[in-house]
Amino acid sequence: MKEQLRMAVCYWHNFCWNGFDPFSHSGTLQRPWFDIADPMQAAKAKADAAFEFMSKLGLPYYCFHDRDVAPEGLTPKDSANNLKAMVDVLGQKQADTGIELLWGTANAFSHRRFMSGASTNPNPEIFSLAALQVREAMNATKALGGYNYVLWGGREGYETLLNTDLRKENAQYGRFLNMVVEHKYKIGLPGHILIEPKPREPSKHQYDFDVATVYGFLVQWGLEKEVKVNIEANHATLAGHSFEHEIATANSLGLFGSIDMNRGDMQCGWDTDQFPNNIPETAVAMYYILQGGGYSFGGTNFDAKARRQSLDAEDMFHAHIGGIDVCARGLLIAEQLIKEDKWGDFVEQRYAGWKNPYYQEVLAGKHSLDSVAERTLAANQDVMPSSGRQEYLENLINQAC
Amino acid sequence: MKEQLRMAVCYWHNFCWNGFDPFSHSGTLQRPWFDIADPMQAAKAKADAAFEFMSKLGLPYYCFHDRDVAPEGLTPKDSANNLKAMVDVLGQKQADTGIELLWGTANAFSHRRFMSGASTNPNPEIFSLAALQVREAMNATKALGGYNYVLWGGREGYETLLNTDLRKENAQYGRFLNMVVEHKYKIGLPGHILIEPKPREPSKHQYDFDVATVYGFLVQWGLEKEVKVNIEANHATLAGHSFEHEIATANSLGLFGSIDMNRGDMQCGWDTDQFPNNIPETAVAMYYILQGGGYSFGGTNFDAKARRQSLDAEDMFHAHIGGIDVCARGLLIAEQLIKEDKWGDFVEQRYAGWKNPYYQEVLAGKHSLDSVAERTLAANQDVMPSSGRQEYLENLINQAC
Amino acid sequence: MKEQLRMAVCYWHNFCWNGFDPFSHSGTLQRPWFDIADPMQAAKAKADAAFEFMSKLGLPYYCFHDRDVAPEGLTPKDSANNLKAMVDVLGQKQADTGIELLWGTANAFSHRRFMSGASTNPNPEIFSLAALQVREAMNATKALGGYNYVLWGGREGYETLLNTDLRKENAQYGRFLNMVVEHKYKIGLPGHILIEPKPREPSKHQYDFDVATVYGFLVQWGLEKEVKVNIEANHATLAGHSFEHEIATANSLGLFGSIDMNRGDMQCGWDTDQFPNNIPETAVAMYYILQGGGYSFGGTNFDAKARRQSLDAEDMFHAHIGGIDVCARGLLIAEQLIKEDKWGDFVEQRYAGWKNPYYQEVLAGKHSLDSVAERTLAANQDVMPSSGRQEYLENLINQAC
Amino acid sequence: MKEQLRMAVCYWHNFCWNGFDPFSHSGTLQRPWFDIADPMQAAKAKADAAFEFMSKLGLPYYCFHDRDVAPEGLTPKDSANNLKAMVDVLGQKQADTGIELLWGTANAFSHRRFMSGASTNPNPEIFSLAALQVREAMNATKALGGYNYVLWGGREGYETLLNTDLRKENAQYGRFLNMVVEHKYKIGLPGHILIEPKPREPSKHQYDFDVATVYGFLVQWGLEKEVKVNIEANHATLAGHSFEHEIATANSLGLFGSIDMNRGDMQCGWDTDQFPNNIPETAVAMYYILQGGGYSFGGTNFDAKARRQSLDAEDMFHAHIGGIDVCARGLLIAEQLIKEDKWGDFVEQRYAGWKNPYYQEVLAGKHSLDSVAERTLAANQDVMPSSGRQEYLENLINQAC
Repeated sequence: MKEQLRMAVCYWHNFCWNGFDPFSHSGTLQRPWFDIADPMQAAKAKADAAFEFMSKLGLPYYCFHDRDVAPEGLTPKDSANNLKAMVDVLGQKQADTGIELLWGTANAFSHRRFMSGASTNPNPEIFSLAALQVREAMNATKALGGYNYVLWGGREGYETLLNTDLRKENAQYGRFLNMVVEHKYKIGLPGHILIEPKPREPSKHQYDFDVATVYGFLVQWGLEKEVKVNIEANHATLAGHSFEHEIATANSLGLFGSIDMNRGDMQCGWDTDQFPNNIPETAVAMYYILQGGGYSFGGTNFDAKARRQSLDAEDMFHAHIGGIDVCARGLLIAEQLIKEDKWGDFVEQRYAGWKNPYYQEVLAGKHSLDSVAERTLAANQDVMPSSGRQEYLENLINQAC
Repeated sequence: MKEQLRMAVCYWHNFCWNGFDPFSHSGTLQRPWFDIADPMQAAKAKADAAFEFMSKLGLPYYCFHDRDVAPEGLTPKDSANNLKAMVDVLGQKQADTGIELLWGTANAFSHRRFMSGASTNPNPEIFSLAALQVREAMNATKALGGYNYVLWGGREGYETLLNTDLRKENAQYGRFLNMVVEHKYKIGLPGHILIEPKPREPSKHQYDFDVATVYGFLVQWGLEKEVKVNIEANHATLAGHSFEHEIATANSLGLFGSIDMNRGDMQCGWDTDQFPNNIPETAVAMYYILQGGGYSFGGTNFDAKARRQSLDAEDMFHAHIGGIDVCARGLLIAEQLIKEDKWGDFVEQRYAGWKNPYYQEVLAGKHSLDSVAERTLAANQDVMPSSGRQEYLENLINQAC
Repeated sequence: MKEQLRMAVCYWHNFCWNGFDPFSHSGTLQRPWFDIADPMQAAKAKADAAFEFMSKLGLPYYCFHDRDVAPEGLTPKDSANNLKAMVDVLGQKQADTGIELLWGTANAFSHRRFMSGASTNPNPEIFSLAALQVREAMNATKALGGYNYVLWGGREGYETLLNTDLRKENAQYGRFLNMVVEHKYKIGLPGHILIEPKPREPSKHQYDFDVATVYGFLVQWGLEKEVKVNIEANHATLAGHSFEHEIATANSLGLFGSIDMNRGDMQCGWDTDQFPNNIPETAVAMYYILQGGGYSFGGTNFDAKARRQSLDAEDMFHAHIGGIDVCARGLLIAEQLIKEDKWGDFVEQRYAGWKNPYYQEVLAGKHSLDSVAERTLAANQDVMPSSGRQEYLENLINQAC
Repeated sequence: MKEQLRMAVCYWHNFCWNGFDPFSHSGTLQRPWFDIADPMQAAKAKADAAFEFMSKLGLPYYCFHDRDVAPEGLTPKDSANNLKAMVDVLGQKQADTGIELLWGTANAFSHRRFMSGASTNPNPEIFSLAALQVREAMNATKALGGYNYVLWGGREGYETLLNTDLRKENAQYGRFLNMVVEHKYKIGLPGHILIEPKPREPSKHQYDFDVATVYGFLVQWGLEKEVKVNIEANHATLAGHSFEHEIATANSLGLFGSIDMNRGDMQCGWDTDQFPNNIPETAVAMYYILQGGGYSFGGTNFDAKARRQSLDAEDMFHAHIGGIDVCARGLLIAEQLIKEDKWGDFVEQRYAGWKNPYYQEVLAGKHSLDSVAERTLAANQDVMPSSGRQEYLENLINQAC
């Protein structure tokens, strides 16, 4: 199960967030390292706490943004050096604990210079600063033995269409992503370059809207074999999809890479990043992950935070342990469903008519609209639909719970 | 203005809908032709009324589904013959009135045989029936001098992912659309094959979710040069986009084709198909249509219905005249904005840095992530962002109103 | 468990709906009684099928609208007589099977005369027709030994605010509801008059938006002790609430009456009326129902329909059996949670400070803002918040699953 | 127009917000007073800038939270004293500029002590701290000649229902609001106590969900004659209502008080607090404000912020001037519509049947359900509906634009 789920702790929500929200800049959470004045000292104290927590929890992986683990410096070079210094610290801690890096990423959305985008910024000098930052973050990921590298474009989009040239920003992003893929090969990162779709927030509109949109972008820039997606449940629902829809879509397009395992609140219209707590829903997601062959290099990252009212270290344990249990139980249910194979078999049978040689030819492009139409007209008989058996299939899941 | 807007009356909402909704099968609207027992007689009486209304209104175009103008028969052949008979009737009326057909389409979503899809049906015999129906509708469109042919896949999607094989349905749809494009060339339709994106309703999920999704699908099947989109305002907002976003996205991807001009109700989560009534919002949409070069073969189809409580013929006139005026005023504002060019000029200037020869080389793929990063590191200076001037741009629009 | 859940089959979705939706007037479902030309003969055949289904299923209750069981006649009197005739038929079937009527209601939303409201119609003659219809439906409910009477105001609201006088319609509705309550006492109905909140659909806005809105209306018209709510899960989520929020709100305001147990699809913005299929979510709802003391006269009505693609009688069984199992398992989990009492105990302790005599006086109105402020100023010390333990509580539920 | 609109500048968005959002704690905006280390010195520099901006803009009113103008101190008493000191500063500036205070309020939502509520906190000592803070803010408002006092309960609600006792929190809030009203009379504030409805954000659920919910709460606690509502456009749409719905509802219930004039983004599910920029929509809101008699003590507060990418002081002017123009043009259109009276007259006629003496008696409670039903049965005739003329009414608005 450890190898099937490849669970990871995220650095940002657990060790960086102070509980702030749009109506409270000062937040609620009090962590000792927040009070350390020297940024590098604070970063080290934070790393101590992070690895202590992760060791106690016992998950095999973690994930971070560059700015989570190392502070922004006064100049670009300072920032790069800060990250390099912290890579040494983290590397030692990984060696001490056996915890591995599932993926790294660069935070190119919090600093004000990125307010109008990183690679899609109207100002090419900001594009260059993003290129530097991503290069450093990729190299750091490599240095730490990380498997994958993620891009989440929180500001790659627009706040208002009125000041935005979609075609230009698309071309900038297309070139940028190609550079990232080339760099991956250059440094020899073992896993995937991953794009994380999200439709909006912080931007009004984000270019990586959902899996299908990312697919179109990748094909446009020749990258559909090179880049995969990191799917987040909460981002799926913000885009108007179910989590399992995004997983199944990625499977069908050959894009499945990794998972950010956090739910939203369906009554709220923003990203709440809550730990998963619904077993049957998680089981369905797990079913589609398994059906697609499971993870190769990706994993299950808890991109989730205990609520801002969950003030205590104890709450971080409740939150993670609850999420871990839900995923584990979901996985067992999914395996049971696959073993029984009633579900998969029903779907297989539903499309059985397409195995007919004539329809294989149709799919292979050997018939025209006219020839299919004429054949149908000659037969001149209507075809009755058959039941989709939705409730039967839904019941199968609950029976396996 | 007539040539710029190319406005059309739709057949279905005006002459076929009886005012039914999910809580009232019997509807509210009473039209004389609803009471005629013989289906073909009813279809002819409906055509009489439709052309009388359209002539009085004075718009140059109309649009229809096959089943709007001709009844479903007892067999596929009967249905085809009914349509052919009505093509003669409609052709005569077009000749008498000078009204032209903007586009035709097939209703492959209302009949129960299509409940699980037309081209994406698990049963290939239903795929074939759809092929026949589309062939007949395309031929009818051609026979009536229609410009374009539209596909709207109300059932091309799923009601539950549980019984659905996304990869198989995608392949069926890809082949089907290629057959449609081939047939367009065969019969010599002058304008576009148009896909109309919509995210959901009637299906839980529809494959043509939005413009970006359609783009990905077209590229996957080699059709991005062959097929364009018919964008509907209400479908845009259901997908989580603004109307102008979908237009600008289509422009940027080379997909812009035609418009269904009807708004939704932003407080309701379904398709209300209301006539446009907001002048500044319509002006922004018109701005992007003009900016992309306007229509070639497409037009502005009022895919809108007077409310089910707007019982009288008088209301159909109020509704259309209101919509026409809103579009006309929107167009004048858009032209004023383009003439002043403050808006366009601001956007142009915002990206001016990319004209720098070095950045032209970056976009052209002549630099790697490493080389851009090294150059940036050498310069070692941060870049300050500049204002996006959103409120200034918004004010420009109101000043032109 | 039978007495705790008091489950009911609904007449409308199971025996009246033909599978139509906004894009298919002709529907998908074929039931033998749909083809019977004589309306009363069809109604009797439908009743035969309904009681056969309900007997096989074995649930103790059913619910209906007047027009579900008896056809609209040519005149108001004919309609009343049709209903009376069917009451005799249904009464015999109840006697034969032991199935009881949980509640009755009147359909005052499907017929075109009610398009602008029933009791809130601008035309008082339509108010009167609604009064007649409701009187007949209440009397029928009484005659059949029904426990409760429900009002769901699908058209009690507006399609556009522009033509609506909210104050006038509110006064009409207030008087109407008082008349209904008076009539309940007159005929001696044993249970509750129930209002079913829903925010919108079919109307753009409905007056019974949610439980809190209904409460305000009841207090305004002196009915908060007389009327309770029939809460539907799907209506709750359409209003932006969780199902359990609406139940807990009703408990806290003394309004809890009965449940329509059907979920929506959180990715769709309309009423999908699906059978419940999520066990932990249902368990939470059950917890709050039990916490409030459970049902007195109300029950758990499956106001849900098998999907329009679930064509077969078999699907109706899958759907109901799945829903029944989910509710039963939810109830067992809820009982376990109440028995353990960790959850309830945590909440109790969280507010324990208010038992302090001083704060009891504050709540009793014995202190002013000034006096509380002065006391606080004198103490002059801040108070630290304590954790809300959300994840711990969420884990309790999963541990009981 | 100045007296009709009574426009106000808000302190918080303009002078306190640094452009932070959930993905950027450090923000984008750089104001000189952010860099002043001493909090009281910073507060004074902020006040200098605020009054300079407001004087240049020329609006007659402003609004603030206590913590906007004066910093939180180390103890409750320090905070109270800081506010008193700043009241002197602000009072002098008001005298110098002639700018008046439309309303004051207390920020009882940003500090971590209020994370689980202020008056609705499970801990009564936090209730007391809120009481002190509100007392001080009310007194400050009075000292500055302010007209009204607003309560916005950003944390008066819950993050999870699981740890919440709705009945207890409701009782706390009911008592608290009564204390506030009593204090208003004690200090002699001339205008209204105003509640500002909002459905959610920052809390998952907020008790002052919308106008109708607030009405129910007020009636429950005997305050419906004492408290009015401050309606915000963005909060209306988050609650699933149109802005004009909330205004018209407040009019119909006698609760209309004041306006927060800021729109949301209908494609985003959170509070964007944008300046109004749609003239016809604003005209409709103005129509209902005028129809209800306009403001007595309330006004039009721009609770709006220039976007986080609108970095410059210039942008604050663009934003306000755009908003002012939109409101002014909206007001002129609304006056024209009232003068013409086609709209009002149509609505009046629509309900004319209720002037019939019999129906006046029905409304007055002189007839029972039985007597109305019997009269209707005796007449035994159906009533045909008449058109709601929605499109005609919508066109009236555009014709006045």
